[in-house]
Amino acid sequence: MSDSAPTPTQQASTWLAEFGAALEQGDLEAAQALFDPDSYWRDLVAFTWNITTMEGRDAIRAMLESTLAATKPSGWQIEGQASAADGVTECWFTFETAVARGKGHLRLKGQHCWTLLTTMAELKGFEEQRGPTRERGVAHGIVPNRKNWLERKAQAESELGYSTQPYCVIIGGGQGGIGLGARLKRLGVPTIIIEKNERAGDSWRKRYHSLCLHDPVWYDHLPYLPFPDHWPVFAPKDKIGDWLEMYTKVMELNYWHSSECKSAQYDEATGEWTVTIDRDGETVVLRPKQLVLATGMSAIPNMPTIAGAESFQGIQHHSSRHTSGADFRGKKCIVLGSNNSAHDICADLWEHGADVTMIQRTSTHISRSDTLMELGLGGLYSEAALQAGITTDTADLIFASIPYKILHTFQIPIYQEMARRDAAFYQRLADAGFLLDWGDDGSGLFMKYLRRGSGYYIDVGASELIADGKIKLKSGVTIEQIRAHSVVLSDGSELPADLIVYATGYGSMNGWAARLISQEVADKVGKCWGLGSDTRKDPGPWEGELRNMWKPTQQPALWFHGGNLHQSRHYSQFLALQLKARMEGIPTPVYGMGEVHHLA
Amino acid sequence: MSDSAPTPTQQASTWLAEFGAALEQGDLEAAQALFDPDSYWRDLVAFTWNITTMEGRDAIRAMLESTLAATKPSGWQIEGQASAADGVTECWFTFETAVARGKGHLRLKGQHCWTLLTTMAELKGFEEQRGPTRERGVAHGIVPNRKNWLERKAQAESELGYSTQPYCVIIGGGQGGIGLGARLKRLGVPTIIIEKNERAGDSWRKRYHSLCLHDPVWYDHLPYLPFPDHWPVFAPKDKIGDWLEMYTKVMELNYWHSSECKSAQYDEATGEWTVTIDRDGETVVLRPKQLVLATGMSAIPNMPTIAGAESFQGIQHHSSRHTSGADFRGKKCIVLGSNNSAHDICADLWEHGADVTMIQRTSTHISRSDTLMELGLGGLYSEAALQAGITTDTADLIFASIPYKILHTFQIPIYQEMARRDAAFYQRLADAGFLLDWGDDGSGLFMKYLRRGSGYYIDVGASELIADGKIKLKSGVTIEQIRAHSVVLSDGSELPADLIVYATGYGSMNGWAARLISQEVADKVGKCWGLGSDTRKDPGPWEGELRNMWKPTQQPALWFHGGNLHQSRHYSQFLALQLKARMEGIPTPVYGMGEVHHLA
Repeated sequence: MSDSAPTPTQQASTWLAEFGAALEQGDLEAAQALFDPDSYWRDLVAFTWNITTMEGRDAIRAMLESTLAATKPSGWQIEGQASAADGVTECWFTFETAVARGKGHLRLKGQHCWTLLTTMAELKGFEEQRGPTRERGVAHGIVPNRKNWLERKAQAESELGYSTQPYCVIIGGGQGGIGLGARLKRLGVPTIIIEKNERAGDSWRKRYHSLCLHDPVWYDHLPYLPFPDHWPVFAPKDKIGDWLEMYTKVMELNYWHSSECKSAQYDEATGEWTVTIDRDGETVVLRPKQLVLATGMSAIPNMPTIAGAESFQGIQHHSSRHTSGADFRGKKCIVLGSNNSAHDICADLWEHGADVTMIQRTSTHISRSDTLMELGLGGLYSEAALQAGITTDTADLIFASIPYKILHTFQIPIYQEMARRDAAFYQRLADAGFLLDWGDDGSGLFMKYLRRGSGYYIDVGASELIADGKIKLKSGVTIEQIRAHSVVLSDGSELPADLIVYATGYGSMNGWAARLISQEVADKVGKCWGLGSDTRKDPGPWEGELRNMWKPTQQPALWFHGGNLHQSRHYSQFLALQLKARMEGIPTPVYGMGEVHHLA
Repeated sequence: MSDSAPTPTQQASTWLAEFGAALEQGDLEAAQALFDPDSYWRDLVAFTWNITTMEGRDAIRAMLESTLAATKPSGWQIEGQASAADGVTECWFTFETAVARGKGHLRLKGQHCWTLLTTMAELKGFEEQRGPTRERGVAHGIVPNRKNWLERKAQAESELGYSTQPYCVIIGGGQGGIGLGARLKRLGVPTIIIEKNERAGDSWRKRYHSLCLHDPVWYDHLPYLPFPDHWPVFAPKDKIGDWLEMYTKVMELNYWHSSECKSAQYDEATGEWTVTIDRDGETVVLRPKQLVLATGMSAIPNMPTIAGAESFQGIQHHSSRHTSGADFRGKKCIVLGSNNSAHDICADLWEHGADVTMIQRTSTHISRSDTLMELGLGGLYSEAALQAGITTDTADLIFASIPYKILHTFQIPIYQEMARRDAAFYQRLADAGFLLDWGDDGSGLFMKYLRRGSGYYIDVGASELIADGKIKLKSGVTIEQIRAHSVVLSDGSELPADLIVYATGYGSMNGWAARLISQEVADKVGKCWGLGSDTRKDPGPWEGELRNMWKPTQQPALWFHGGNLHQSRHYSQFLALQLKARMEGIPTPVYGMGEVHHLA
């Protein structure tokens, strides 16, 4: 590098200084000119009180015109050193707004911004009490008749939901509800989590016998309390269940187990929900200001309508009802579907000595777990990443810094390498008749997850059983008719059946709004999840972000929370900050509310 | 610094290189010459398979003569940079022995070693599986009838102690037993922890109502799973209880609650203990190779013999039986003693509206909690320390690096500053008649703790009540006689009494050996704790280390574990390594077994 060429850090610092000055002066022309024509600004709550990506200079300018006066950003400061590779300079930075402190990430191409990420880290005056600001725990000095911690805790628990009302109610106490509950607890937002099972963690415990997490430990941490460093790479379901139960207790969440939400109505006039809970047989009416549906992406089963199903003399159920193959030794089992659940259940049945046939209707993407971990996640979530200084929190932000619009371009090479590396494996599957795909544009598993939440299997062994013929396969067909003891396929063949498992997926989360609130509200809110990529099962128009997730919806005071452990962990931060701001009466003008294009 | 003067790092590296070379060549003359005449080498298991401090060149040489051939130390390598201040250069380093990897700390005065710490970090070939070597958790691939994690765990739990035997049994499932149990679990040493209470953490929960930890959070972490960063500075007893319970489950310890050890005998011929357990009503006989008494320093109460005690018509009990002052509103309460428990109980009774008198027999050291935290612990265990890069693990090693022989010289200035800063406080206490001391040599609280485990109160409010006369005080006297409704003091005065609490401390831990094994074994082992400093309640001769703690005793296969949260955490590492080495058949020749000078 010659003496006159600026270092990456100088280059990034210069950009941030010019950007900060332009914003301070309200000079939108200058601000806009700092962006490349091909540029993206992803904002998580800091400017827009929304989760939204501005694509291109015009969209960026429009957002600034609308938000700059209220946001009052300042203090743009590089954090650490910038780095440069392949013509892109990147750095972390911090900044402030009128009401919050933020953290961001910048990528420059030449002098211009290519991608900008701005995220809200904490609200000024409402910071989490941690480290130096943690509570003392004891007020030294002796006070007569003082209640101790346990008594205060028991009293608060007995009053909340009865003589006092929570500000927020979360329906669903799985990993999503629990992680969000922990963030709200640290922010001092009174919250009750409603969970139908008897114990926290049961939503994992009750799944099929051999289940282990498909994502590795570095991807799976909950907020605040990371797993200890002997935690296995792929945690068994009961172990994760126990951890969630422990976490719920240690974080002192108001967790109503054995409780079910029966209905919820919103009163626009009072800004209050009426939420009716069956708490272990007792009807309790809660009146929170905010309602979060954290009921899971896999909550409302899709059940196909097949002629003759009612005449079937064996057992038939949706994959969500399947617990163990133990009862099906020697039985003829048909599994309709070829995604994760279908594979897992086929393997479970085969392990238990059943005669299993998978009915693959359309093509499926397969990633071998080891390969996916290494190629897909290894750069951000692995021991190697940790040793390179990329903690889970940093990894989350790096991931968030890539706009959805171009995420597939980062993904395609990963899957090209995967196809090359595991070519023999894919050949054996194809030889067995399995219909493979890599997504419409070759971008693989994670894009399928974001676009449609389905269409893949992370192979932890079932693919070998298919390749070996141990799990029988019928592909390119579906079940046309069900008889008393058999299924008839679309190719005319007939298979004897004692069990039919419908591994046919789940509906959109707004189905929960229909069930608990009303069809009207579900339709007003529209479909959850998906990007509008105009690929299979993800119809356009392009949305730029996941629909309705972790951000304001068309129904005031109704929120959707969910996703995998990574998403639950990371986006719970932004959802919690949005809720806290509303509780504290901080203005939260939402920019860029999406139109609803699809009802479900 | 001139060009020719070596940097601290060069200086320290040179010393380590010369030391390593001398040891490699077996040149004890050269090795000895590298130490100052006033020098100390503290070894935690790495050279001596013992916890021992060699004081002076001769002792160091004698140790090397005995251990060098088997230890085969090598690879002395500075870690990070050395620092220099006040004529002392210090650094961290790593090294290896024939069987282990170690970490150490060096202080040089000029060219010569002043203090050397060598600690065993891990046994080669028996490292804990963590980070990159953690378990996978799932063996990908499908195996018929495979047991899952929960089934394997349930099976192992049901077999251990019945059809399979633990290698180690720990009596006592408080913080000490739990932390050691976790280390043994990570090292793969099959262990059962025996705890008389119903739930892990009950030994905290059952203590008096207003109790919070007297030590701050940074001092209190358990191994492997630190408290989250919102954890209060001084955790309430029930919160710590819940944490211990959670920790026991998450670390998957074999924790037998509601279980009591009735007796234990050692068979020298088979090298096996016969330990009889009452497990919730069922008698179970365990046959471990190693027995650890982690029954706590405060386990066997000292009860004074006072004339007429049997005639007392009120309630009288040892401080360990006191739970809450709630039943004593308006009652006349006498507390005999003036250490921590006495103060805490007086304050608890006063809070509940009792009429309380403390009987102070002899002088007491008082440290105000805030001042103690700042002056006594702040350099090592605080947010400031954390921000200076001193994690809890590092702090533990720094603390361990100061030989007990000179520890008081580090402590005295702290208490001189405390006396200066809190002069008005001490004056008010003295004005109220309270007898104050600072330890025989002015070295204050922590030395008293190490020497005698008593003689102080960390003030969290009771001293103000004494200064204000709210807790009444009789000092320089004792109870000479007890009548039906009063106590008679040695000054002839008589006080009405409904309650007498004997806050008269606890016996040595080898009392547990007497109770569970035999008086013969208790006497063979001798007194636990104390340094032999020849100060009050710590008779000589000088031992150099705490007697019998965390290291081999005169009774083969019998170990004592305990101390505060810091000591339990840190020394459990070395006790666990000693046990693991024995399990794996690694030779563990013990150097410097202490003679027994006191029976209790």
